[in-house]
Amino acid sequence: MLLSIPKHEFKERQQKFINIYKEKGCEAAVLFSVTDIFYLTGFHFYPTERPIGIIIDPKDKVHLFVPALEHEHAEEYSVVDFVHSYPEYPGIKHPMEYFKETLKEFDFENKNIGYDALGYSSSQGYRGPSIDQLIDVKQFISLHAVVEEMRFIKSPNEIELIKESCRWGNLVHRLLQKYTKSGLSEIEITSRASMEATKAMIDTLGPDYKPHGSTAYAMFRGQIGPESAFPHAVTQNIVLKKGDTLVTGAASSVFGYTSELERVMFVEEYSKEQEKYFNYMYEAQEVAFKAIRPGRKYSDVEKDVQAYFKENNLTELTKHHTGHNIGLLGHEAPFFDLGDHTIIEPGMVVTVEPGIYVKGLGGFRHSDTLLVTEDGIEMLTYYPRDLESLICY
Amino acid sequence: MLLSIPKHEFKERQQKFINIYKEKGCEAAVLFSVTDIFYLTGFHFYPTERPIGIIIDPKDKVHLFVPALEHEHAEEYSVVDFVHSYPEYPGIKHPMEYFKETLKEFDFENKNIGYDALGYSSSQGYRGPSIDQLIDVKQFISLHAVVEEMRFIKSPNEIELIKESCRWGNLVHRLLQKYTKSGLSEIEITSRASMEATKAMIDTLGPDYKPHGSTAYAMFRGQIGPESAFPHAVTQNIVLKKGDTLVTGAASSVFGYTSELERVMFVEEYSKEQEKYFNYMYEAQEVAFKAIRPGRKYSDVEKDVQAYFKENNLTELTKHHTGHNIGLLGHEAPFFDLGDHTIIEPGMVVTVEPGIYVKGLGGFRHSDTLLVTEDGIEMLTYYPRDLESLICY
Repeated sequence: MLLSIPKHEFKERQQKFINIYKEKGCEAAVLFSVTDIFYLTGFHFYPTERPIGIIIDPKDKVHLFVPALEHEHAEEYSVVDFVHSYPEYPGIKHPMEYFKETLKEFDFENKNIGYDALGYSSSQGYRGPSIDQLIDVKQFISLHAVVEEMRFIKSPNEIELIKESCRWGNLVHRLLQKYTKSGLSEIEITSRASMEATKAMIDTLGPDYKPHGSTAYAMFRGQIGPESAFPHAVTQNIVLKKGDTLVTGAASSVFGYTSELERVMFVEEYSKEQEKYFNYMYEAQEVAFKAIRPGRKYSDVEKDVQAYFKENNLTELTKHHTGHNIGLLGHEAPFFDLGDHTIIEPGMVVTVEPGIYVKGLGGFRHSDTLLVTEDGIEMLTYYPRDLESLICY
Repeated sequence: MLLSIPKHEFKERQQKFINIYKEKGCEAAVLFSVTDIFYLTGFHFYPTERPIGIIIDPKDKVHLFVPALEHEHAEEYSVVDFVHSYPEYPGIKHPMEYFKETLKEFDFENKNIGYDALGYSSSQGYRGPSIDQLIDVKQFISLHAVVEEMRFIKSPNEIELIKESCRWGNLVHRLLQKYTKSGLSEIEITSRASMEATKAMIDTLGPDYKPHGSTAYAMFRGQIGPESAFPHAVTQNIVLKKGDTLVTGAASSVFGYTSELERVMFVEEYSKEQEKYFNYMYEAQEVAFKAIRPGRKYSDVEKDVQAYFKENNLTELTKHHTGHNIGLLGHEAPFFDLGDHTIIEPGMVVTVEPGIYVKGLGGFRHSDTLLVTEDGIEMLTYYPRDLESLICY
């Protein structure tokens, strides 16, 4: 049972990243993206006002730059050559002044430097200079989205972690369905299911399990009855009623990797109208499953789904594209969208979730996570999709 | 019982923001910060790859710019004059092209335009042009941190919501302490406490309660035994042992507003060594409480705490500043830090959490949330702080 990414894989990722940026003419690089720092070094942390970054020097050594309060934490858990730290933010001397000194010490001056962002950014009160104000280099070369693109195709280990995530997503969704009853509040149902599944998960996986994200959880996120017609509603603490259309979500992070499982469910009973839209949604998802195979474009999948909606006069009731990649983040590029012409490749892990939204009645959207294989797809989520299995009694 | 910010307060915030940017010479403004959008309009949403922004036009009308899937949601829940939407991201036509058209339609060309960021940004796969590439204006004027500074001083309604958050933080912490036993895993304890407190919370507050964040939760975040010496550890799924030092955290969001309650606890028993550092930490927090009053600077508080640590030869064991503002975000500026010379004012809500970290033994940090009053402070969290109350049997 795999519960983490092995150390050598982080080193391989670093080497691959170095190769890519050297091809682009960079001699060294700085990165500030929280997700990419984890992807390259295995260092999981809570971003705050205190800047954190990676530096890869001209000798290909990988340095983590952290606040003092993360220093030992970083030394113990990250796969890097050096950890540097500064006392505090904002501090008497700004963290970026220490950053500058580290860059100078490791020979960044007068070099071609790759960067994902010209500085750290945070909504939590951080302010500071950009690195081009701090140091003279030959040239700054944007590496924006380079690591994101490395993350498009998942390694066998990443796929194992996502499969583990799907298993516990399945359990928490099973419990969610079991506890869903009219007269109960959405939060009451979801917190009970989430707690029980989390307990089973940690008892099963034991102390090697590190979530680096949420443990098993299920939610309605306010998508209950007519409110489910808002595809991205927020938790409203609604009490469920007989006949409500529900749109669910369930997942669990395993060493930072997540998955997506969403189902339309009905409370006790459903009308002909609800059944009709359920069936359209179900078929639209089948259209997408058939449309995904290596060599086609992401946009081709969206075209097929939109053609199906158009044939059935449903275009007016759709509100978003068919899906997206998933892994360390809940939404990752590329997207099954008319404007995204990325070629589908084996090893990509995607969600398929075409939706239909009927004002006053509800929303209809299943989401499944699946792996692109050499000749098609492998379903990673496996919760029942058919209507009869999704009535809550 | 107040469970949300009334509509008129959002309008007052908008008017205040408009007055501020006009003083800075702006005739209109665009904003992309997720927190500031909620603060100004009451629109709570899950940020994704799909850009969302606010436009305030030269006639002072407030527009929300959202993807189609948020359109009706925004119309129902936000306090704005207009909602505009685009079909999808990336789409055949990029969302920023629609944004440009809206700016042109509402007379942004050849004006002095304030902005918080020159475009939307997201780690979830968004890419797009900055607004200065889209439209010709007289001048772009940075309004970075202007709304953040408006958020420094809380209104009476905001203070009420934070007090409500503290109440449920207290309950979930009480349950956390009750369920903390040696031999149990951290996640098992925290998920049980979180679920029970959440259930009590929603049964008590009823359907008017909207979390817009996390419902009641408690955590150790990996700060257990020697690991508690990492002040910002992450959940490690550790099993508790007799004599462990624990550092906790408990809170609950109420209409987006949060609070911070953290305690050092000991499992069943404690050593002389643990008691010694507990007492130092306890006294350091008292030093900070006494140091906070209107007219002093944030840095003065940090100076007093550091002087206390120095007197007691503890400086080497400290790793971070004494605290920060709190409200819509868990960490907000200003900071009790040597480098932050902001003047303390009545209505600011702050955390006080000086910490001592002893390698191999553990971390020692209480955190309380308090309100700055006309002549000092009012404690908003009220969980016992003394050692005898914090032993878990």
